[in-house]
Amino acid sequence: MVKTIEWTDEGIKMIDQRKLPHKEEYFFAKNHYDVAKAIKEMIIRGAPAIGVAAAMGIALSLKNLNSDLKDKEKIKSYFEEACKILQQTRPTAVNLSWAIGEMKKSFYKNIEKDLEEIKELIFNEAMRIYKKDIEINERIGKNGSVLIKEGYGILTHCNAGALATAGYGTALGILRYAHKEGKNFTVYVDETRPYLQGARLTAWELLQENIKAYLITDNMAGFLMKLGKINCIIVGADRIASNGDTANKIGTYSLAILAKYHKIPFYVAAPLSTIDMNIKSGSQIPIEWRNQEEVKKLNDILIAPQQIEALHPAFDITPAKFISAIITEAMIVKKPFNKNLRKLFY
Amino acid sequence: MVKTIEWTDEGIKMIDQRKLPHKEEYFFAKNHYDVAKAIKEMIIRGAPAIGVAAAMGIALSLKNLNSDLKDKEKIKSYFEEACKILQQTRPTAVNLSWAIGEMKKSFYKNIEKDLEEIKELIFNEAMRIYKKDIEINERIGKNGSVLIKEGYGILTHCNAGALATAGYGTALGILRYAHKEGKNFTVYVDETRPYLQGARLTAWELLQENIKAYLITDNMAGFLMKLGKINCIIVGADRIASNGDTANKIGTYSLAILAKYHKIPFYVAAPLSTIDMNIKSGSQIPIEWRNQEEVKKLNDILIAPQQIEALHPAFDITPAKFISAIITEAMIVKKPFNKNLRKLFY
Repeated sequence: MVKTIEWTDEGIKMIDQRKLPHKEEYFFAKNHYDVAKAIKEMIIRGAPAIGVAAAMGIALSLKNLNSDLKDKEKIKSYFEEACKILQQTRPTAVNLSWAIGEMKKSFYKNIEKDLEEIKELIFNEAMRIYKKDIEINERIGKNGSVLIKEGYGILTHCNAGALATAGYGTALGILRYAHKEGKNFTVYVDETRPYLQGARLTAWELLQENIKAYLITDNMAGFLMKLGKINCIIVGADRIASNGDTANKIGTYSLAILAKYHKIPFYVAAPLSTIDMNIKSGSQIPIEWRNQEEVKKLNDILIAPQQIEALHPAFDITPAKFISAIITEAMIVKKPFNKNLRKLFY
Repeated sequence: MVKTIEWTDEGIKMIDQRKLPHKEEYFFAKNHYDVAKAIKEMIIRGAPAIGVAAAMGIALSLKNLNSDLKDKEKIKSYFEEACKILQQTRPTAVNLSWAIGEMKKSFYKNIEKDLEEIKELIFNEAMRIYKKDIEINERIGKNGSVLIKEGYGILTHCNAGALATAGYGTALGILRYAHKEGKNFTVYVDETRPYLQGARLTAWELLQENIKAYLITDNMAGFLMKLGKINCIIVGADRIASNGDTANKIGTYSLAILAKYHKIPFYVAAPLSTIDMNIKSGSQIPIEWRNQEEVKKLNDILIAPQQIEALHPAFDITPAKFISAIITEAMIVKKPFNKNLRKLFY
């Protein structure tokens, strides 16, 4: 399996996801500014993956700091500035804040130590987050695979795969696990305009695993549900509010309504780090509106008249009432989410 | 306004809709085989437009026939063969059958006349269908514009514009008429994958009319409804069954379910020639499944892994229960469609 992100001596190595599936090119982040650029420009994307990238970016920022520096205030302000730069890259996914929060805890716990020692501890913390993400995904895969029955048709949107995480994947982790168990099923892959994460990334991952899959345009999903091809829908998440409302890639909300109408279970697969217990509902999740050129162009080729204006909300919010269950590394969380998520966290 | 289709001395001239909006290239059909190719390969598309193209194609087939031919049986079998070739191009839109039916009526009414005279009468019949289509669209526009209120946000899918007809358009004809009346409104244009008729054709037509419009990807429509941006949806149709079930571009079915959930009126605009009173429901409408390469490629560039399989249903069926009204040249047809369409036809 290709590595989404990796710490190397030449910098943080990330596969450039904008170039997949046709080119396997790698981007090397030499400092935290490079990491911020990689997140903002979607060289790396997917909520868990950008959390890991931010953690590594913070470790890299400290690594680059002159080890002779003794002034704790200067170290703190440098560290805080690096965190801020990474935090500001993308607003919707909470894993970014979560990972930065974990790094801050470790930093301030060790602030009185020598800078060299802090660097090492912070690096270890980033590596822990990285490795834990893969383990968590495998547990999500195992927990979720009980929902996949022999002969199922499963619809997924965007890419919640190995490429969206440190490895293995959330929604695709479940499919990977079920496939390993020998279950036969067919995946219907929404191409996921405008960035085509489904067509480019999910299709590519499923091919590598030899999982039977069909690519469809986003507007075909409802019709396939009507034809009885879809037995369940599994998507990832960028942020889940404490009541279960879920921010995910634009189009998820529509799929959930279509699933409800067709009486098809709709599952969200995500690590606990995607759940934001600090907010009561989805209305508090900021939606990122990206550049309209990303809608008007495909592979840098203009597909619409230059003068037309376009809109580009990158995410939408799916109300908890449309979600059948949330599949986490701890368990499959059922309704009422409010109560059951609280039980899980506190 | 650009002409979708035109009879010229050099052949039937059609703007190549695959090249728009970046290039205005024209295709000249020299015989009915060329017309069939133009329909099949979507040089010309849109239910009313392909009806007109078929009518002109039949007139052209007779024009190309040696005028010395006296054997009526040979003339008939040549004519029937030309009709068959044009009929077999695309299965879903009924306007094709309707127009061929009109041509056949005219042909057999005049079969005993001289071939030269038949040629002229058949040519006149094709011209009548062509001109009538534009008039009909203007009447649809006038009838439908009462539904457009000041400040409305209107969602449309695919292209039901001048390019989908002999001119003016059905769904876009309504917007054109309302705009001419001085109403202010905003159009949200679904890009309409895989062929991007919305991004390429509808956006282009609306820009030419100076109608305020935003391009969106198909998967954004539900979220914009939730945000309260959409006051009504107007789409065209490829075939309407006698109970009101409507075949239209893939994605229409999903939009109708989303509209129902958000309590947004959902209108279908189409000429009476799109209504197939011979079938009871949408289940009898054949759905065209096109080449999967059309999903995997965009502007001839592969956007997905070569090995992935794709599905390409080109249309879907929207059940009548989701349709608020059908806007025709005769009137706005309300529910129950079964009864009210029958009244209109018989």
